[in-house]
Amino acid sequence: MKIGVLHPGEMGVSVCAALAASGHEVLWCHDGRSPETHNRAQPYAATETIRELCEKADGIVSVCPPHAAKSQAQAVAQTGFDRVYVDANAISPNSAEEIAQVIGAKFVDGGIVGPPAHTHGSTRLYLSGARSEEVAGWFSKGYLAVRPIPGVGIDGDGRQSGTELADTRASALKMAYAAYTKGSGALLLAVNALAEAASVREELEKEWEISQKGLVNRSRVVAKGTSRKAWRFVGEMEEIAATFEHFGLTGAFHEGAADVYERMMALKNQPPSELEAVLERLLAVKST
Amino acid sequence: MKIGVLHPGEMGVSVCAALAASGHEVLWCHDGRSPETHNRAQPYAATETIRELCEKADGIVSVCPPHAAKSQAQAVAQTGFDRVYVDANAISPNSAEEIAQVIGAKFVDGGIVGPPAHTHGSTRLYLSGARSEEVAGWFSKGYLAVRPIPGVGIDGDGRQSGTELADTRASALKMAYAAYTKGSGALLLAVNALAEAASVREELEKEWEISQKGLVNRSRVVAKGTSRKAWRFVGEMEEIAATFEHFGLTGAFHEGAADVYERMMALKNQPPSELEAVLERLLAVKST
Repeated sequence: MKIGVLHPGEMGVSVCAALAASGHEVLWCHDGRSPETHNRAQPYAATETIRELCEKADGIVSVCPPHAAKSQAQAVAQTGFDRVYVDANAISPNSAEEIAQVIGAKFVDGGIVGPPAHTHGSTRLYLSGARSEEVAGWFSKGYLAVRPIPGVGIDGDGRQSGTELADTRASALKMAYAAYTKGSGALLLAVNALAEAASVREELEKEWEISQKGLVNRSRVVAKGTSRKAWRFVGEMEEIAATFEHFGLTGAFHEGAADVYERMMALKNQPPSELEAVLERLLAVKST
Repeated sequence: MKIGVLHPGEMGVSVCAALAASGHEVLWCHDGRSPETHNRAQPYAATETIRELCEKADGIVSVCPPHAAKSQAQAVAQTGFDRVYVDANAISPNSAEEIAQVIGAKFVDGGIVGPPAHTHGSTRLYLSGARSEEVAGWFSKGYLAVRPIPGVGIDGDGRQSGTELADTRASALKMAYAAYTKGSGALLLAVNALAEAASVREELEKEWEISQKGLVNRSRVVAKGTSRKAWRFVGEMEEIAATFEHFGLTGAFHEGAADVYERMMALKNQPPSELEAVLERLLAVKST
């Protein structure tokens, strides 16, 4: 098959590799992409335009920052594309439903858990919806494990999906997973910043070493691991907040997490930052 | 010495025990206390009124729910009490400063980290302010470790304390510590509730077993460990949110945590609840 991947970012290019390992021809579209993407996607067949990719592809996987997911789907729908479209982005079930409406019947919802898939066992692509098994069949080899979620989901209003609503449980699962990992990471950075501002960080670290072993080290790991990626976590935290609200729960935790990651925007193109440099950003930038 | 403890709740009575072990006569006031408190405080000398306690005591330690800390201090101040008053409650540095203004020069700020002190090494009372060492001297024996924070603090506006402002770093430390432990606990419960509502809790637990070992078990431990105490965490989360805001950081995480614990209010007088029972409460109660 010919499968289009929009777009080969760090995660997307590992999806390209899994599809290529499974014997497919992988297409990407170089219109508007960065030099880094050109470099990463060099082994795969480039098209000039989205239209050209949509004409050639037997299926498409969308892997992009959350804020771009809907416009990406609209650009594909405008070409009249009528084959399977997998949205594998970190978006709320509501956003996935909107994309399902744009794309039509051959929409499959997806959610990726883990880092870009460069080793066995690191990363899973969850899928939900009627064509999940069909899409799982695209990935017979490679490092990305693909997991269709069986059965039919129930949405917040208690309506069964499979009727007029798409089955967006893969997005819900991704939101719930990232809600804890990225939410608790942001919380931990904020707590360190609070202790720094109040001149008690040394005392907090000593207390953690007694009663919360691991938090001192985890603070340093989270700072280095998120400083360059925080800019694209902001939209994801907003999608997670919306997901909590949709189900009648509080979105406040992830409004807080979005605030923390937004203050770290300027670290995007820096080398991985030490905790102290991250705390400096958190305390220098005020809430928007 | 004669030391008054207001009041001997679960934590307070362990403070009484440490003071008694150190050779002091411990006073408490039975006016308005519950039968449980009467039972717990039975080994110690009861007074009829706060005034009587204040007339007899050489020092007072306040250990009460956050929302009661200020009215407690006002009741003591109204008696003309002029010896050392330790506020050991889970309140923001701003609230501690307000109490310092009410109490006057012999205020010592405190913050307790850990469970009620019934074994060695479980629990620490942090102190800040000019008379910290003096108060630490009250606790020569017993299970409660007492830690004066050395030096002079700087507040959010960069003013040195020790001038007209009290040194409230013990409260700041308590806020920062509880911000992560109780904040991440509330977040974890909320994430489980989200997954339950979206019909993906089984999938989330399976994914956690692969990539976040410990979260399935921690969810169950947090549910059982907090269900009966959540009612008194609400005020603490509000104090923490105010602390973040005071230092120019986001209070949103702990507005979310307050919402979660508030939904669990009805579990106060129940046996420790299973995770499923907690999730049912979280999903049944709507935000206020």
